[in-house]
Formats: sequence, structure tokens, C-alpha cells
Amino acid sequence: MTKIKLVVSYDGTDFHGFARQPKVRTVQGELESTLTRLLTCPTEVVGSGRTDAGVHAKAQVVHFHQDKGPEAKRYPYILRRSLPKDIVVTSACEVDSNFHARFSAVGKTYRYTLQTSRVEDIFTSRYAWHVPGKLNLNPVERALPYFIGEHDFTSFCASATPVKDKVRRLTELRLEAEGSFVHVYCSGTGFLQYMVRIIVGTLVDIGRGRLHPDSIPRILEARDRRLAGQTAPPNGLILWKVHYGEEQSK
Amino acid sequence: MTKIKLVVSYDGTDFHGFARQPKVRTVQGELESTLTRLLTCPTEVVGSGRTDAGVHAKAQVVHFHQDKGPEAKRYPYILRRSLPKDIVVTSACEVDSNFHARFSAVGKTYRYTLQTSRVEDIFTSRYAWHVPGKLNLNPVERALPYFIGEHDFTSFCASATPVKDKVRRLTELRLEAEGSFVHVYCSGTGFLQYMVRIIVGTLVDIGRGRLHPDSIPRILEARDRRLAGQTAPPNGLILWKVHYGEEQSK
Repeated sequence: MTKIKLVVSYDGTDFHGFARQPKVRTVQGELESTLTRLLTCPTEVVGSGRTDAGVHAKAQVVHFHQDKGPEAKRYPYILRRSLPKDIVVTSACEVDSNFHARFSAVGKTYRYTLQTSRVEDIFTSRYAWHVPGKLNLNPVERALPYFIGEHDFTSFCASATPVKDKVRRLTELRLEAEGSFVHVYCSGTGFLQYMVRIIVGTLVDIGRGRLHPDSIPRILEARDRRLAGQTAPPNGLILWKVHYGEEQSK
Repeated sequence: MTKIKLVVSYDGTDFHGFARQPKVRTVQGELESTLTRLLTCPTEVVGSGRTDAGVHAKAQVVHFHQDKGPEAKRYPYILRRSLPKDIVVTSACEVDSNFHARFSAVGKTYRYTLQTSRVEDIFTSRYAWHVPGKLNLNPVERALPYFIGEHDFTSFCASATPVKDKVRRLTELRLEAEGSFVHVYCSGTGFLQYMVRIIVGTLVDIGRGRLHPDSIPRILEARDRRLAGQTAPPNGLILWKVHYGEEQSK
């Protein structure tokens, strides 16, 4: 019995999210049915965590067990032919039996992309949120440090989130401009549902002058979803990297 | 009666090409049905030319007539709401009655994108041809000048092409490297079916050492499709710009 780790890219546009669900197309479902067929053995795939419908991944991490099957390093080539076009395995290796895609992860990085040009560029619209009009990045930069560190993120998660403990730790929140795009990199040890998207939606509200950057501490303290900004749409969000053990670089 | 010119971007992935056809989804069909609904009057749209199934456009040009309707400059905003997400009107203006999207065009520029990284990047795979492995650009650069000027392009068009006169004039064929991407810009006064894709497929064969760059004159002269290289897939091709009268810049 060997344990295989795959790094997986996907275009989330045409999936109902990562997590397996009956009757709809999901990333986990596609991976499992393909591996089950390939290994001629029911194969369950464990991911580092879910991504919501329409959210993409550059480097989602999953693991699975195989009794006998191909050498780990051959998976990217083998799966290229058998997986649908919107899922690509970018690397594969054998891992220790104590590795776990979810429980061994010590953090994650997401990237959210805003497209600020007046007219939407159709070749990036699947992977960016089009926010035409003036976006002032100075107040946005000013707001970023307020999010760093350990906070109760109740105001910045879906109001229906069932988990009780909403304290999470953000380790990075930074902007990177690239032409008419603004990338928001957000790293942390754990994330609540819609958390990155609500943070980004709030940053956009700040960039448009609808919210003051110094209002963030008050919003965090209030633990009230209604005080934060809009939820940014899923298509701009990419699960960028999952961090394990020593490797912590982006 | 006014004549309106639209500049249109589209993601060709989910279209059966530009040209209207019964029962399948086409760009012209979508534009016509949307304008017909909007203007409550049967509206025909004339494009600068066709693009094949799966081929994209950054700036296709179309014209149509309207008896009464919105001001031209409002079209990008109005159509944003009513067109499907994979078509975007990027600009619009009123034009002289003698302007014709097809017959007034004096040339076109296409861009073909190759992605040379070992592992395919999923976020660009809709708009680039993944050619992993060694691609030597020196012989490709050497081959480019042979295509420039007036030639009979019989060897570089679909063998079933019905038009008799296959002499066309290329004015530009150049490479632009951008990270792991290579863009091929190809401009000319007219193009035959699959012409850019066969030129690009041949350039890739040259870059892989399967064809010698100095064989191009002989292949052109032979007027035999079988001597040129493979036809590059449609997804890497973008109709980049249509040139009219004085404006000739890219």
C-alpha cells in the first residue's frame, strides 16, 4: 500500500466546487472516478480542503492510497490523458503514510485577482473580478495590516458558517499590481467560508471610498457580517498554494 | 438610418465559429439575436470575416444598420447586460454609410500563442497551444522572412479551400517571448482558411528540428499542403486587430 500526493490545478468555472456531491460535477468526484477507473479499484481522494463553486486552484493538494499502480512520478502524464481538460495534475510523489493532505497542512495562500480596466478583457474574465472605475489603492494598503494576525473573523465569513470558533490567523495580506490587474495575496493558517472573498470585497469598497480603512478594527470587533463589505465573486479566487511543514514559501 | 461599427471580443471556445449557421451557437448568431431583440427589428450583422470554431477575437469588427436605437457610444454598456458572457463589445461608433466591416478592411493581424512550459498552465490553456519540450527559436526566426511578401499560399491552407486565387500578402510575421509563452504575430492583407494555424504548426515543426527553416521557399513553391507542417489547434489563435484605411498600427 503506497500513499500518493498530487498537486492539482483546476479551472473551477464548470465545477460545483471541490467537494464530492451527488449528481453534480465536482473536482473530487472527477478525480475519484478517474482514479477508480485507472486503478480498477474504488479510490477515495482526500483534499487539503474545499474550494467553493467557481473558485479555481493553481496548486490544490490531494492524497490517495494505491495497492498497486503506476509509479508516482508518472501520474501527471497518465492523468493528462484521462482527466477532463479543466483539471491538470502538475506534480506527483509518494509520501509517508503519516502525510495527510488536510491535517498535515500548516497554512494556505490564496490569490484574488481584480481587473480594473474600463472594458473587461474577455481572456481573463474567467479568472478575475472586473471592477471598472476608480479604485484608490492607498487606503486599501492602509487597511491591510489590520487583518494580519489572530482575529475573530465572524464579520468576514458567510453568516451561516456552522463552525463555532471563528478565530483565524492571517500571516500575509498584500497587493501586487500587474498592468490593469491587482492581485491580492492572502495567506493564513486556516480560512472560514467566503473569508477571502469578503475581505477582498471589503477592500474594494475601501478602494472606492465607500468604507474607511480605519473602520476595519471596529468591524472585526463587532463580529457582525453585515458591517463588512460585499462578497467578491468566486471567479477571481485561486487556491494558490498549500503549505506543509518546512516549505513555507509562496 | 444610421450605421454602427462595433469592436467585439469573444472567447471562441464555446462557439461554432463566427459565421451564422442554423442550430449551432455562433458569434454572429448571438449578436444578431441580441440586437434584433434590443432594437425590436430584424438586424443583420456583417463581420470583417469569419473565424473558425474555437478561434478567439480580441477585436473583431462588425457593422449593422439601425433605424432608431441607442446612441452608438452606449452600445458597450447596453450589450454588456444582454450578450452572453463570452462576447464583449469593447467600443462602438457611428460610421459613414460607405464603411463596410469586410470590404473596407485593408488587412488583419492575428496572434497565435504557444505555451512552452513542461506542465500546462490551466489558466491559459483556453488561449494557448501547449507545446512542451524543446522549442528552438533560432531556426524559427530564420524561417520567418520567407513568408513575408506576396506568395501563393496553397501549401499553407486547408486543402479543401474552394477559392481559386491563393496568392496572399503577408506584411508581418514575428515572435514575441513572454515568460514561458511565445506569441506569433501575423499580419497580412488577406488570409486563407487555416493559413495562420498551418504557418504556426510549420514553425513549431521547425523549432523542434523536424523541418529545416530553409525548406520554406521550396514548400511555398510546391503548392502542396502535404509538404507543410501540422495545423495548429484553434484555441491558440486570436483575431487581434482589423485594419481600416489610415490606422495601421497594431
